[in-house]
Amino acid sequence: MSIAVDAMGSDFGPATIISGAAQAVADFPDLSIILVGQIDKMKPIAARLGLENHPRVSYEHADDVVDMADKSTDAIRAKKNSSIAVCADLVKKGVARGIFSAGHTGASVAVSTIKVRCQHGIARPAIASLMPTVGGKFILTDAGANTDCKPMQLAQFAIMGEAYARAQLHIKEPRIGLLSIGSEDIKGNELTKETFKILSKMPINFVGNVEGHSLFCHQKADVVVCDGFTGNVVLKAAESMAEATFHWMKEIFMRNPYRMLIGQAARPAFSELRAIANYEEFGGAPLLGLNGVMIIGHGASSPKAVRNGIRVAHEFVKANINDYIIQRITESEILIDPELKS
Amino acid sequence: MSIAVDAMGSDFGPATIISGAAQAVADFPDLSIILVGQIDKMKPIAARLGLENHPRVSYEHADDVVDMADKSTDAIRAKKNSSIAVCADLVKKGVARGIFSAGHTGASVAVSTIKVRCQHGIARPAIASLMPTVGGKFILTDAGANTDCKPMQLAQFAIMGEAYARAQLHIKEPRIGLLSIGSEDIKGNELTKETFKILSKMPINFVGNVEGHSLFCHQKADVVVCDGFTGNVVLKAAESMAEATFHWMKEIFMRNPYRMLIGQAARPAFSELRAIANYEEFGGAPLLGLNGVMIIGHGASSPKAVRNGIRVAHEFVKANINDYIIQRITESEILIDPELKS
Repeated sequence: MSIAVDAMGSDFGPATIISGAAQAVADFPDLSIILVGQIDKMKPIAARLGLENHPRVSYEHADDVVDMADKSTDAIRAKKNSSIAVCADLVKKGVARGIFSAGHTGASVAVSTIKVRCQHGIARPAIASLMPTVGGKFILTDAGANTDCKPMQLAQFAIMGEAYARAQLHIKEPRIGLLSIGSEDIKGNELTKETFKILSKMPINFVGNVEGHSLFCHQKADVVVCDGFTGNVVLKAAESMAEATFHWMKEIFMRNPYRMLIGQAARPAFSELRAIANYEEFGGAPLLGLNGVMIIGHGASSPKAVRNGIRVAHEFVKANINDYIIQRITESEILIDPELKS
Repeated sequence: MSIAVDAMGSDFGPATIISGAAQAVADFPDLSIILVGQIDKMKPIAARLGLENHPRVSYEHADDVVDMADKSTDAIRAKKNSSIAVCADLVKKGVARGIFSAGHTGASVAVSTIKVRCQHGIARPAIASLMPTVGGKFILTDAGANTDCKPMQLAQFAIMGEAYARAQLHIKEPRIGLLSIGSEDIKGNELTKETFKILSKMPINFVGNVEGHSLFCHQKADVVVCDGFTGNVVLKAAESMAEATFHWMKEIFMRNPYRMLIGQAARPAFSELRAIANYEEFGGAPLLGLNGVMIIGHGASSPKAVRNGIRVAHEFVKANINDYIIQRITESEILIDPELKS
């Protein structure tokens, strides 16, 4: 049961990814890793980390590297032998069961959708992002894979998010909410109003619309469903607000010597706070709905975040989330849309 | 130059609104106010506040009150003589130049659009919300008036937001950004990609796409344009994240007696922080694009926020923002869409 790791996809270069991979194989004895990328760049780093002859680490060469500035479509056409494409090929061939990549998100989604393909009946895969809330966590899906969505796709995201919540958050009947701008069913845009009708008929624990102001406090749902444009904007805006709050706090505690003294004493407390709000450390977001496991990490992932992302990929493979998704999709007659059948 | 104040539109009842109105007339000698609502409820409160025979405060009776649970459409049909409808009538008749309401947002938008009407050439009014950012402020528009928008509407929101930024933030050439999920023009959904093309051709300081993570830090634009669904979700999600951060902070500073001591000493600093993040105190958001001034306050506005909202309405009337908007719309040939001409 191997996880293919895109060693080239990091804002900080392959050393960050390979360090994270080294931590992961050390921590999980049943985990095997295939490091994918330019061999001449990977080998010296792996040697330094004592991974060269590790029994559970192997290497796969890939000529190209998808650059953050590349368009997703160019990444597929012009860089056929990129590290992410080789990762997807390994899953397609059955050599690996999952992928971890902290590289170009658009390219990762596009390449894995083309090569690994969606599960039967699923129209499009969705990114599911685990986020902090007062007293717990929730899953936001889609967090950025699909900019324009149809109601049926959102209904499928609900099933995929439910599978994730059961397997990872261990919630038996996850509460599914629909991100909208009012709590009543008639509030929202055309997409959410149509989606509301479908979700109401599905055999899920649908709790109705969830507004922005109950996302991080007064939690109402374990899974919050939305289109990928809205999800991505919300994810990044919330991150930005948390960052701004830290900035303002710093300014306020620098205003006079007495404040600076208090700020100094409060430092460990502030570090704890930062750790809660810094949800990137959760280890990456799964791209759900594929015939394989794909975990997308943040480009600026630390080695610890990479290690966590690989751990999540490993757990997803073991939890058979995909089997659960396909079973639920098949069960929900309402989701068997002729348009979506392949 | 009177401002009609919806005395019934508050989560806390008319006393909150009338106290705010009393503060406003005391602070601004050139301001006249018409308090609109149920006379028998308003008069005793006004008497208590010494407003009964105030030369710049008059009263207008309205039988009905729009309830927060009412649908916007019902509010228009079934409550023809609601306080918000009477406010709109006063502007329509030229008795008042502006409105302040902290009541039902949907009803306020619907009623004022029907009665006060949009400026010539404007398809729909938009809510413009002033928000805090590290080192300044920015205007988010539309923050919730229009759930499904066309590109041309977003282009009009850009002009309206520009007018607001010039008049209130005193920025000569406001930077206009388009809220999206990638910085390049090809990133985004169908709506933003089409809107990008229009904004690029307009005689404005268009700075391109703005992502969620540069909203509150690393500010790139003074005006951020989006559809009202996305805007409302972002506004509320950011508010929710700020609130969650305060919750987490409280938890962390309650963990042990030493921490509690530091937390106690840091209390004034935390209050300052809360004041920055609490952008509701800015005093309400204008509904731009109408033949009159309409300021929408938060339902939970404090008297101080009500006072500020009335101040903003007063300033908008004096700044002739509407003249500026109509001039800019007429100048921008690209905005004279046959479909939108009335």
